[in-house]
This record gives sequence, structure tokens and C-alpha cells, in this order.
Amino acid sequence: MDQGRAPFSRAEYDRRLALVRAQMATRGIDALFVEDPSNMAWLTGYDGWSFYVHQGVILTHEGEPLWWGRAMDANGARRTAWIDEESLHAYPDRFVQSTERHPMQHLAALLKELGFERARIGVEMENYYFSAKAYVTLLKELPDADLVDATALVNWQRAVKSGEEIAFMRKAARISEKIVDGIFERAEPGLAKNELVAEIYRDAIRGVGDDWGDYPAIVPMVPSGADASAPHITWNGDRLREEQATFFEVAGVYRRYHVPLCRTVYLGELPEEMRLASDALVEGLEAGLVAARAGNRACDIAQALGGVLEKAGIKRGARCGYPIGLSYPPDWGERTISLRAEDDTVLEPGMTFHFMPGLWMDTWGIEITESILIRENGPAECFCDRPRGVWVKD
Amino acid sequence: MDQGRAPFSRAEYDRRLALVRAQMATRGIDALFVEDPSNMAWLTGYDGWSFYVHQGVILTHEGEPLWWGRAMDANGARRTAWIDEESLHAYPDRFVQSTERHPMQHLAALLKELGFERARIGVEMENYYFSAKAYVTLLKELPDADLVDATALVNWQRAVKSGEEIAFMRKAARISEKIVDGIFERAEPGLAKNELVAEIYRDAIRGVGDDWGDYPAIVPMVPSGADASAPHITWNGDRLREEQATFFEVAGVYRRYHVPLCRTVYLGELPEEMRLASDALVEGLEAGLVAARAGNRACDIAQALGGVLEKAGIKRGARCGYPIGLSYPPDWGERTISLRAEDDTVLEPGMTFHFMPGLWMDTWGIEITESILIRENGPAECFCDRPRGVWVKD
Repeated sequence: MDQGRAPFSRAEYDRRLALVRAQMATRGIDALFVEDPSNMAWLTGYDGWSFYVHQGVILTHEGEPLWWGRAMDANGARRTAWIDEESLHAYPDRFVQSTERHPMQHLAALLKELGFERARIGVEMENYYFSAKAYVTLLKELPDADLVDATALVNWQRAVKSGEEIAFMRKAARISEKIVDGIFERAEPGLAKNELVAEIYRDAIRGVGDDWGDYPAIVPMVPSGADASAPHITWNGDRLREEQATFFEVAGVYRRYHVPLCRTVYLGELPEEMRLASDALVEGLEAGLVAARAGNRACDIAQALGGVLEKAGIKRGARCGYPIGLSYPPDWGERTISLRAEDDTVLEPGMTFHFMPGLWMDTWGIEITESILIRENGPAECFCDRPRGVWVKD
Repeated sequence: MDQGRAPFSRAEYDRRLALVRAQMATRGIDALFVEDPSNMAWLTGYDGWSFYVHQGVILTHEGEPLWWGRAMDANGARRTAWIDEESLHAYPDRFVQSTERHPMQHLAALLKELGFERARIGVEMENYYFSAKAYVTLLKELPDADLVDATALVNWQRAVKSGEEIAFMRKAARISEKIVDGIFERAEPGLAKNELVAEIYRDAIRGVGDDWGDYPAIVPMVPSGADASAPHITWNGDRLREEQATFFEVAGVYRRYHVPLCRTVYLGELPEEMRLASDALVEGLEAGLVAARAGNRACDIAQALGGVLEKAGIKRGARCGYPIGLSYPPDWGERTISLRAEDDTVLEPGMTFHFMPGLWMDTWGIEITESILIRENGPAECFCDRPRGVWVKD
């Protein structure tokens, strides 16, 4: 093996392989096919914007993980992953977006060659990149194999971060702070939103010192006024206006590790209704941070927040957070735990979440959030250190 | 119906609906479920970064398309799509990334309610957002329906652009030109790649005049030297160096419409091997543009390019282009036609392609590409007007 440019130590990758293999053994899985690009990168270091075609990592109980993908991307694997040349398996370009053949035919042939024709093979049934057609094709091509649902098997192993990962997230956090500082400094009536987003991107990618910024798995969302009633509107050329709140959902990213940080800016004098909501949100966040401690459950955070908001007469229907770390588009969440009433996952030291209680009302919205780390003892640590409450610029 | 902020005229949306419905009728499809965010936007105008959860558009043979998605995103549909309030159907947040329930259970119930329990329903089997689990869940929940593969049914209707769409692409092209001009101006030995990408993003999002820039469906790829042997490496903090080629795969985007434009910058004196490759590539592009005319086939473009490259001793294994237009991550291609030997799709006026003959050699790579429009007569028109050949900066 050649460490190459993979971002982490070999010991760190060994730790990850051991975790996943233990879980595979528990579930009786002989070979795991991982198409999620975040899982691929977490296991092998592979990094590239090639996930718009089928590719994946095959993990068995022995040896290195195998990279499988489009022929032209094998060079990318050689340059970014820690695995050896013999661990690379490429399919020809004629399989790409073809109406006549499917890359999974190639994968099935490879799995047979590797001796998994009658094996129990795990696939990520609920994933952006493992399509319905991919599944149906594999089923057909491997009639004697047992394809089992291994959705999020790897994602769950990512939940508790190592020291090396937390160090990356602290670098990302400095970038997040730089982004929101830039927003507050520049926001003013008349400034076009795309002009502001242009500066957000510039700050984010320049990074901080030698820590260059990577692209976020979700683009900035910066809705103003009534648009902020919708949580996922991106931007346009409209100008910021007085007497409007704009929320900024952004994340600093260091080598694919995300630390989201959302703040809301109000230009003018904050209306009473929003001030009360902002105060309740801040109080709810603080209550949530106290509940976010090892041994408590995911739902305890949600309930601590919900209790405060309810007292203020605010009802939120949505979950208030999710795990974060290494990610590729279209989501910077890990899609495992959800901070909500029905999730009783026990919190462990090293878990990291975006604690994200956005308020999307009928005619306005505000977001004030923290990315947090569960500690050995005591309340969660916030990765960033910026004032909460709506930021008012008069 | 309320035109709202949808970017196109009602006549344009009617044109689109008629095209899709005609194709549905040909295939005997009663209801089409479209999860591809590009297809959703093309039909309804819906725009938002919400595609990381299940959502879609249901199109039947009568009335408006129906938007279906997460409750918190209904406000986004209200603000961006041209459809009426009665056409919005939302599912509760407890379906989001749950291990206990799947949004497709909600969709199935809705389809039953709409009378499609025993209907022939088209689904996009090969798509990033319609997961294997989504398919299996729908199958189970709609045992009496006939789920048929409608992959790219809508995408194919998008191939020929309307005048309104081409106008958007011309705006995007001005942004593309601005981006590559900025790259050439700034590239110099010692400049960190992330610093250059920060400026690329800034130029791209500031846009040109009142035409604000939107985010690209693929982030900039800017590999240098041997990294350029891999087509999909993004960026890092390395510095540009003398005697190295860096290619820039970028796109200007106006309201989700993409015009990719790739150029290669060499800092120093161009080595003979690269000069010959650059010359062959430019000649091949020119031959391809002449072949890219209405009545010819997709393969004719590939063969015209391939003939020139072969004479120069260059063998390319990959396709050399794909259709472009409206897109969301992770791909700015439309995933229908491919410019390659086996694709005999007949070219029609109004079709738009990224003619993309990248050369990824063992120790270097160059990309020189054009986004093109098939005209009524004569060779294709290039959307951008910038010199070809490797751009040398000494």
C-alpha cells in the first residue's frame, strides 16, 4: 500500500476497516458494496467529482478495500486513495450512461471473479448513488447471490469521530467563523444576494492560513424575508432590504469535513415577534447543549429544545439536527441519527452533530445553529464561537 | 395557476407538458413520477436544494403537474413553481431519513388517493434520486400497479431547446467567458489553486451585469501536471508551478442553465508533445463542429474528431460530449445522447451539447472544449468565443 495523498494515517484507515468488518461479521455479510462517495472516501481516501457515474468500493473480510469505477477515474484513485494498483478495477467507457448496458453488469462479473457468486452481499439500498436500476441489474446478474440491505452500515461507523477527524473539523470551524464574520461585515441594504454569496464562496475556498477551503456538500442558502419561510431556497440577484431578516446556512469545509454554522442577519430594528423567537431559540439551544452529553439520547436534545420553544408558543415539526463530518453532495448530514423525539440513540463521546433548530414561519424565517461535539463529560462543545441571537445591523 | 417566480412563460411550460404527455401516451403511461430535480424544475419551475430528501413531480394526462415533497419544502414550491396550492402534496418530517418508514409509503398512499392504484406508473429507474429502496417500497405498497421504467423519458424531451432556453444559455456563456478570462489573467507560478478557485467562484456567482450567476452542477476541476491525467480531481492548496499544464473544467450558469467551457493553461514553454496534442485537439474540434449539423448523427461528431486525433496518433477511449442545459448536481449533462461511435441519434436544430474531448494521458492532461448549438443549417454554433489551443503564459 502507498499512503499517497490520502488525508489520514494508515492506523486511522485500519480503525475504520475494523469497525466496518465487525459490523459485516455481525450481519453475516461476505462482501459489502459501497457506492456512497462519502463512505468510499472514508474507507480509501478516494476523492474526486466522479460520483455522477457508478463507482464503488468492495470490502471483504480480507485485504485492502477494492476500488471499482470508470476507467478514466482509475487515475484519480491512483492519486488520492491509499490502496494499491492491484486493488483498482475499472470498467470501459461504453458502460457510461448507456441505454444498452449497465455498469452493474461489469460489477457483477467482477464479484463472480472474486468468488462472490453465491455470497451474501451488502448493498446500500437507500442511497443517492445506488439507483433502482443498479439494484435490479445486480439482482438479475447475480441470481445465486443473496443481496441484503446494508444501507448506512458504513455511515453508522462514521458517527464517532477519531482525533484525526476532529482536528479536521476544528480547521473547518475556523473557516465557518470566517464566512459568517464576512457576511455580517458586508450585509447591507442594496447589496445583491449573489454578490454576497460570491464573497461567501471566496472566503470559504480561500480558507484560513494554510488550511484551504473545500467545496460544501450543500451550497449556501440565503433566503430573505418571506423567502426565509422556505428552508432550501438558494440565492438570486435580489437586493438585501431594510426591515428584513436573511438567514445564512453555510459551512466551512476542510478536506471534505464540514462544520455548518447558520446565523441570521436583520437589517433595521428587530420586530418584537422575531426578537422573542430569537431569544427562545437561543435559550433552547443552550438547553439542548446541556442535554447533549454522553449517555443521554438524541431525543433528549430535541426535547430540551422543544420544551423551551413550546413555552414561547413556538411549535416546530421538523427534526433539529443530524450527524456531520465527511461528506459529498447532495447532503452534509450522515443520514443515521436524527435529533428528534423518536430517536433514542445513546450519545457517545466523539459524536458530532449539526444542532439545527431553524424556524420557518409563514412570512419569515430564522436559523441560529451550532455544530457540536459530544465530550466525555459535561455539555457538548460548540466547534465555533460566535454570538447567538439574530445579528442586527441598523 | 400563478406564474410566480418560475423563470419561463406559461407557453413554454405548456410546450414541455405536451411533449412529455405525448411520450407518456406512446408508452401507455397513466402517471409519471419524476424525482430527478432537473426534470422537476423543467416541468414546474421548482428550485431549491431539497433534493437530498425524496420529492418529485407527478404528471398525469390532465391538469397541472403535482409537486410532492417534504412538508418544510412546500413553502419553497409555493415561491418558485408556477403550480397552484391545490397541486402541492407534502409528507410529514417523520418520514425523513427514518429507519422505520419511507417517504414512498406516503407517495403510494397519495397515488392510490389519486386513483392510480392499478395504473401504469412510470418511474426513473436510473436516476440519482430514485433509490433502490424507493423502488422496492413503491412495489410493495402498490402491488396492483404496473411500475414501468421511464428513465430519461423527460430528459429526452429536454434535448431540443426552445428560444427561451437558448436565451438563458447565451447569458450563461457570457459568464463562462468571464470565468476563463479571469483564470488566464490570474494564473501564475506560486498561486495556490484554492486561491484561484476562490476567484473562479466569485466571478461565476457575481455573473455579468444583471445576469447573476447560479451554482454549477459540478464544481470546478483544476488539476495540474500529473494530476491532470485524472479527469475529476477538484482542487487543493498546491501552488501552480512553472512547466506545468493545468486544465480548468468550469461552467457559467444562469438560472440553472449551464454552458461548460474548458481551457488549459501552460505556465512556461509548451513542450512539443503537448503542442502537437493541442493542435490535433483544435483541428479535431473544428472537424467535429463541421459534422455537428442537423441531419447528421451524434456519432458523426465523434468520428470527425476521432479521425483527426488518430492521424496524430492519439487514441481516446471515452465519449466526447453530452447534451447540456438545465441541471442540478451531481451532473451537468442530460444523460441521454452521448457523442460516441455507437450513438446514432439524429441531430436536430436547437440541440445543445458540451463537445468535450479531454485528453487524459499518463503524466499530463489537457481539456479544450466548446458548448455548441445545432443550427438549422451549417456547422454548429459555439456559445462562447474564446481562442482554442492551450493558453500559454510564459
